[in-house]
Amino acid sequence: MKIAIQGIKGSYHHIVAENYFGEAIELAECMTFAEMPDKVINGEVDFAVMAIENSIAGAILPNYALIDEADLAIVGEYYLEINHNLMGLKGQKIEEIKKVHSHPMALLQCRSFFKNYPHIKLIEDVDTADVAKRIQENQLKKVGAIASAKAAEIYDLELIAEEIQTIKKNFTRFVIVQSKERLNNVNATKASLKFVLKHESGSLGEVLILLANHKVNLSKIQSLPIIDRPWEYAFFADLVFEDYQEYKNAMADIRNKVSSLKILGEYKDNK
Amino acid sequence: MKIAIQGIKGSYHHIVAENYFGEAIELAECMTFAEMPDKVINGEVDFAVMAIENSIAGAILPNYALIDEADLAIVGEYYLEINHNLMGLKGQKIEEIKKVHSHPMALLQCRSFFKNYPHIKLIEDVDTADVAKRIQENQLKKVGAIASAKAAEIYDLELIAEEIQTIKKNFTRFVIVQSKERLNNVNATKASLKFVLKHESGSLGEVLILLANHKVNLSKIQSLPIIDRPWEYAFFADLVFEDYQEYKNAMADIRNKVSSLKILGEYKDNK
Repeated sequence: MKIAIQGIKGSYHHIVAENYFGEAIELAECMTFAEMPDKVINGEVDFAVMAIENSIAGAILPNYALIDEADLAIVGEYYLEINHNLMGLKGQKIEEIKKVHSHPMALLQCRSFFKNYPHIKLIEDVDTADVAKRIQENQLKKVGAIASAKAAEIYDLELIAEEIQTIKKNFTRFVIVQSKERLNNVNATKASLKFVLKHESGSLGEVLILLANHKVNLSKIQSLPIIDRPWEYAFFADLVFEDYQEYKNAMADIRNKVSSLKILGEYKDNK
Repeated sequence: MKIAIQGIKGSYHHIVAENYFGEAIELAECMTFAEMPDKVINGEVDFAVMAIENSIAGAILPNYALIDEADLAIVGEYYLEINHNLMGLKGQKIEEIKKVHSHPMALLQCRSFFKNYPHIKLIEDVDTADVAKRIQENQLKKVGAIASAKAAEIYDLELIAEEIQTIKKNFTRFVIVQSKERLNNVNATKASLKFVLKHESGSLGEVLILLANHKVNLSKIQSLPIIDRPWEYAFFADLVFEDYQEYKNAMADIRNKVSSLKILGEYKDNK
């Protein structure tokens, strides 16, 4: 089984792919999320793993857009507790580190830690693990990576400081996507939707009340500007429910209230 | 009057600051949004201009968090139509450009354009205008910037391709923040809130219906995980209304329904 991940071996996406699918997988390493939809559609990979939401930045809206535009189906989710570590070549002390490269989100999540080390320059990079790899391959002194403990292990680096993220319980939610539709998944307890509302005052409120009447709960909602019609609002929402049939009834009910409704996926709640 | 902006002269923040406050302003150029709250609180600047939402990525949640954590007040908003241009030293042709540096959001917004130029490497940078400045100062050949036409003018670069963003009507919403509270602004027609909900099914729906009863409309909503209590949800919402007193009545009504409510600002709708 071949899985597309963002980044390389040792990245958080790699950890999620192994935790979800087991270790007997082949990886397709992608340097950007934008490469993933084609690989899924062409059948080059069986599934892709995509970060979709985290404790600091909230929803990663461009990834929702990639899933929506390519008509991929969300077939699962995984919550990973993200522990960032500062690492470098063996024997390097934090006082010797001049530059730390990492993914922008990792830098953002560790901002407070580095306030105590103003001599360190923070530089954005495409992948957490890729920096670790380069430090080892090119024997880069004075350079640090922020990455997973797994990356330190794979690329034989030393942990200089552990769990340096500002928020200790720092979760990222990943979704598993594939090309085939998997609707009418009667085992599902969660669904991701995109809907556009008629512009009537309180219409979102009415939709949510209808859902509640069917014991369907909202676990996430985000309005977004409709592309090319800026500032007209559509929504991405995640629903959780116990009874699949009640959820289907709720979907039938709200169709009259919305101007469009698309189910991005139905899957097992994995929180 | 001194205004904090993200980036340097010629950045989109600079354009917004001039359009909003006029040309007789002094700039405090910030390389990150995170530097802004301190400058506002210390009185080093009178106001800060902050991008808060755009057509592709939706809400820029970390900036909402900066405003919320520092207890800044949103006192105004400005919508800027963003036109990205590819620029370089005079006489440079697109075939000669090897690398284009820009802000990650600008790169994201121009992704489709560069699919036709696979020989160009896209590199993330902290500010659109700063790249333009460096190209001129260091006479960098083969390097392009994606920035505003104003940046090309200031740093004397040539436009190689104009309006290269994928979505032609590409708006970014900026907010104007200051330190002083400015509640009870009877001229306000818009408000930004943060609220946390009691975990009862349909409770968000009930809040929205209450707002609608007071003719208060929702122009934006976004759930977000509560820091250190991941996956419990709070919301950032923008409300628009015509009657300030009705809006105040609506706030009084919803206080019973929410476990906390914070007004981030009341201001004139400027869409």
